[in-house]
Amino acid sequence: MLFHVSARLEYAVRFSSTLILNVHVQHNESQSIVTEQFGVEPVVPLEHFSVPGSDNRFVRLETGDAKSLTVSYAATVDCDHDILPTRNLEELPVGEIPPEVIPYLFPSRYCQSDKLARLAWDLFGKLPTPHDRVTGIVDWIHNNVEYLSGSTDSGTSAYDTVTQRTGVCRDFAHLGIALCRALNIPARYFTGYSYQLDPPDFHALFEAYLGGRWALFDATRLAPLNGLVRIGSGRDAADAAVATIFGGVSTRLSKVECKLGEGQNFTPLDRGDLTRAAVALETNTDATPEA
Amino acid sequence: MLFHVSARLEYAVRFSSTLILNVHVQHNESQSIVTEQFGVEPVVPLEHFSVPGSDNRFVRLETGDAKSLTVSYAATVDCDHDILPTRNLEELPVGEIPPEVIPYLFPSRYCQSDKLARLAWDLFGKLPTPHDRVTGIVDWIHNNVEYLSGSTDSGTSAYDTVTQRTGVCRDFAHLGIALCRALNIPARYFTGYSYQLDPPDFHALFEAYLGGRWALFDATRLAPLNGLVRIGSGRDAADAAVATIFGGVSTRLSKVECKLGEGQNFTPLDRGDLTRAAVALETNTDATPEA
Amino acid sequence: MLFHVSARLEYAVRFSSTLILNVHVQHNESQSIVTEQFGVEPVVPLEHFSVPGSDNRFVRLETGDAKSLTVSYAATVDCDHDILPTRNLEELPVGEIPPEVIPYLFPSRYCQSDKLARLAWDLFGKLPTPHDRVTGIVDWIHNNVEYLSGSTDSGTSAYDTVTQRTGVCRDFAHLGIALCRALNIPARYFTGYSYQLDPPDFHALFEAYLGGRWALFDATRLAPLNGLVRIGSGRDAADAAVATIFGGVSTRLSKVECKLGEGQNFTPLDRGDLTRAAVALETNTDATPEA
Amino acid sequence: MLFHVSARLEYAVRFSSTLILNVHVQHNESQSIVTEQFGVEPVVPLEHFSVPGSDNRFVRLETGDAKSLTVSYAATVDCDHDILPTRNLEELPVGEIPPEVIPYLFPSRYCQSDKLARLAWDLFGKLPTPHDRVTGIVDWIHNNVEYLSGSTDSGTSAYDTVTQRTGVCRDFAHLGIALCRALNIPARYFTGYSYQLDPPDFHALFEAYLGGRWALFDATRLAPLNGLVRIGSGRDAADAAVATIFGGVSTRLSKVECKLGEGQNFTPLDRGDLTRAAVALETNTDATPEA
Repeated sequence: MLFHVSARLEYAVRFSSTLILNVHVQHNESQSIVTEQFGVEPVVPLEHFSVPGSDNRFVRLETGDAKSLTVSYAATVDCDHDILPTRNLEELPVGEIPPEVIPYLFPSRYCQSDKLARLAWDLFGKLPTPHDRVTGIVDWIHNNVEYLSGSTDSGTSAYDTVTQRTGVCRDFAHLGIALCRALNIPARYFTGYSYQLDPPDFHALFEAYLGGRWALFDATRLAPLNGLVRIGSGRDAADAAVATIFGGVSTRLSKVECKLGEGQNFTPLDRGDLTRAAVALETNTDATPEA
Repeated sequence: MLFHVSARLEYAVRFSSTLILNVHVQHNESQSIVTEQFGVEPVVPLEHFSVPGSDNRFVRLETGDAKSLTVSYAATVDCDHDILPTRNLEELPVGEIPPEVIPYLFPSRYCQSDKLARLAWDLFGKLPTPHDRVTGIVDWIHNNVEYLSGSTDSGTSAYDTVTQRTGVCRDFAHLGIALCRALNIPARYFTGYSYQLDPPDFHALFEAYLGGRWALFDATRLAPLNGLVRIGSGRDAADAAVATIFGGVSTRLSKVECKLGEGQNFTPLDRGDLTRAAVALETNTDATPEA
Repeated sequence: MLFHVSARLEYAVRFSSTLILNVHVQHNESQSIVTEQFGVEPVVPLEHFSVPGSDNRFVRLETGDAKSLTVSYAATVDCDHDILPTRNLEELPVGEIPPEVIPYLFPSRYCQSDKLARLAWDLFGKLPTPHDRVTGIVDWIHNNVEYLSGSTDSGTSAYDTVTQRTGVCRDFAHLGIALCRALNIPARYFTGYSYQLDPPDFHALFEAYLGGRWALFDATRLAPLNGLVRIGSGRDAADAAVATIFGGVSTRLSKVECKLGEGQNFTPLDRGDLTRAAVALETNTDATPEA
Repeated sequence: MLFHVSARLEYAVRFSSTLILNVHVQHNESQSIVTEQFGVEPVVPLEHFSVPGSDNRFVRLETGDAKSLTVSYAATVDCDHDILPTRNLEELPVGEIPPEVIPYLFPSRYCQSDKLARLAWDLFGKLPTPHDRVTGIVDWIHNNVEYLSGSTDSGTSAYDTVTQRTGVCRDFAHLGIALCRALNIPARYFTGYSYQLDPPDFHALFEAYLGGRWALFDATRLAPLNGLVRIGSGRDAADAAVATIFGGVSTRLSKVECKLGEGQNFTPLDRGDLTRAAVALETNTDATPEA
């Protein structure tokens, strides 16, 4: 499935600063970049880099004396969303989780799974399979947390959301991750471009490691799981922020789009599908237990 | 410098569980393993593994039906502690931090640097160099936080310690890390065997990335920096726990030793040295910008 | 119903300190003191006092140079527990809550009702009457929080317990209070001697203001509601601590008893009763809207 | 000194709700009400009340079907600010604090003094007198916390502010109170009209109980201490909110004024004065241990 994605970010700069951006889509086995453009106005020193153990594609910018910066990114991406029959998402004991997946069992800044263990086992521990537990978590979050723009901020974590029960996509994802990890199910943060998300924006959701694969889950249910283009993965938003700012920079505008390629025929996965199937959008750092 | 290190850990097992242990010393450019033994009684299935982007050496054990487990580890290690002249620990702008070090700028479970930014800049922002800032942080923690066994637990984080002002080595390390990151200085958690630590135990401290190298700092000042043998590095204790338990296992005994090799001549770095010099014990994942 | 209650408290004193004790039973319209003894060994300066708007009976002790203190209290108390038919515990709009009860709507140190509002309305808001809501809260706490000695400390609050889901009687009471207040139902902390509590100790529970009266609720369900002798009421444990210590004093022993008077015939209220009826043990500070 | 104070509050009402307002000035021994007007448009049922142990004057309003409410209050008040020579603000051991003042030693919702004890004793414990400690606290807050509108919300407490170091007058007051109580100095929240506060608004500060009297302190230093007209006192903002809303009401406008009476001659207390003297504005609930 072909998607055209784009982002235009405008920043006001108060003094010479460094920005780390994460807006490039990942290039991996289920996501091919057909075309891609990236530009910054005015021209400033920049460096593309990635971090060991991650396919995220970062850009580091030095603002120098620029008083404002405009970042433009556009790409055409061919995504191969894999619809996973949930009967294959069977039990995977901690003892068989691949080493590279193990860090996704640990608590992180916004996903304090260590503090949610009793709650998670009480609510979901009796469900028969890991896949049932994750869908139980997603349903519970959807039913108990209200999506409310502006109700949280960058300091909000799963420990807050589980009680305060409002948030945005980032908070829904963090809570899903924390509850999975509390049940010994590896889980990680996913950011991406999202087709049919309304209003258009970057989206955040989460992946759980089930049956030897990463499967996508979205407790907000705001967009179809087979319309996502991956930007970043990480333990939580600390690892995959759209922009991390070191210095005096503030966002003036953020315009994000995700359109279907010409001639493509898109059938969104609906609620019913979601209870029967899961979706994967693999990355190179994933385990490939089949191999 | 040769050290003999050993750990004996006894666990009571209530039901079939998985343990991930991190007691093996790292093997890296400044730490050579001369001899090493590892055993578990009774014999249970186990797997050695490491995680991408880390030199930590983990063991995963399946308790099966065993009602108790005794883990024994011993090694003789040749450590090459590098005394760093602090005049070389100069400014390294965010823009020049190597990619693999950048994740150590981000907040983590126990090091909420995002919430400590104003406090950190107010207290240490006027110090002229990054090395001064880190030593300022270490001095401040040493002077303001009381080392008090049993005053904290596994849920305690830097955000608590900065106000409640008691803790153990782990809490001192977490607060040091959080304050460094708040000042845009990469910092990571260090666990190891520690010569002359009294009473003998695993020790936790932290490393700050200064002048292109990781340098060791210990706000507890309980042991000489040139008597350490590295077990683990990580963002915080979530990444480098001695034991992570999935199931029903409790610790019954933990006996740890670190002795000087025969014929070795050890001169502990004293307080005065610490203000003039820093110590490094490099790992392969470090950047080597000189190369 | 006659009860014999007693407490023996032994303290170690490191330096000259002040203690405020709250172990005397209240004297009010439904609780008559038949006999009462209070003594401190060695003899130290002390003062009995009460606080405006409260019937709690405090004693303030000055330890002076004493190295240890033994406090002894014993009383025989005639309690008139009023079994409230729950059909009378009807709706009382905020607009009709008596002024002296209004402060029990506000959040307090250990009962952050302001942070629990969404959760409380989601879980209990659809129940038809305030009495149903309070019994719903009590059932929910009983079913979701595990009574576990030593799992919490004096800093634990309702905001922690609602997520971490372990605690002791004090934590169960705080959570009940916070959830009631979040629903605009006044609620307050109750401490007392408790007949048939096993092991014997001071007990903490809570009262909700329903139908113009304070009714007792105990989410621990560890003791019969008609076997309580009131010591203190307050917003939370900060107002009704058994001992508040200013200085260097630690508890060495605490021995508490509550026995039935000779010839008394006690029928504990059982679970079934609790769903049909509530119990009141009034105090002079209560509103008497009927009068 | 004569002041004309006024407040105009406009509320939007989504559904039938109850409001508790606290905008009336107190009438006490150092504050006489010369004239006073209060009105609500449209006319709705209302009740004036006070709470035991407090001189705060509350109004409870029932919105009924009104879609909006305008509340108007105006008063001319004669205030007798007492400049306290600080040599009289001497030591008052916990053992001599009057009973009615003792609750102001306890932690409260927004003033978690129990968690700040070590920090408070470390920072201020060596100062020789209680008055020195309170002025030390005020100076420390003024120097370390930045006044920043919008940086906090109604859930922010002293435990947050001591680390995050931004806030508004309410946060400055809460932190001052918490630090005083941590040092066993009774402290309470003060709200009032404030002459020369710019921009004009309600103001919040705190009182410490020193030498047998309540003395005013303002860590924001935004207005003269002898230009205040007291509205409310309480343990913290939970006890003395301008408006407590039960239902669906939001504030549309809040316009507050405090002007000097005709012919009055006002000399603001300046910084130098504040280090030498304190100001009291007594209330009837104060202890008068001299009498």
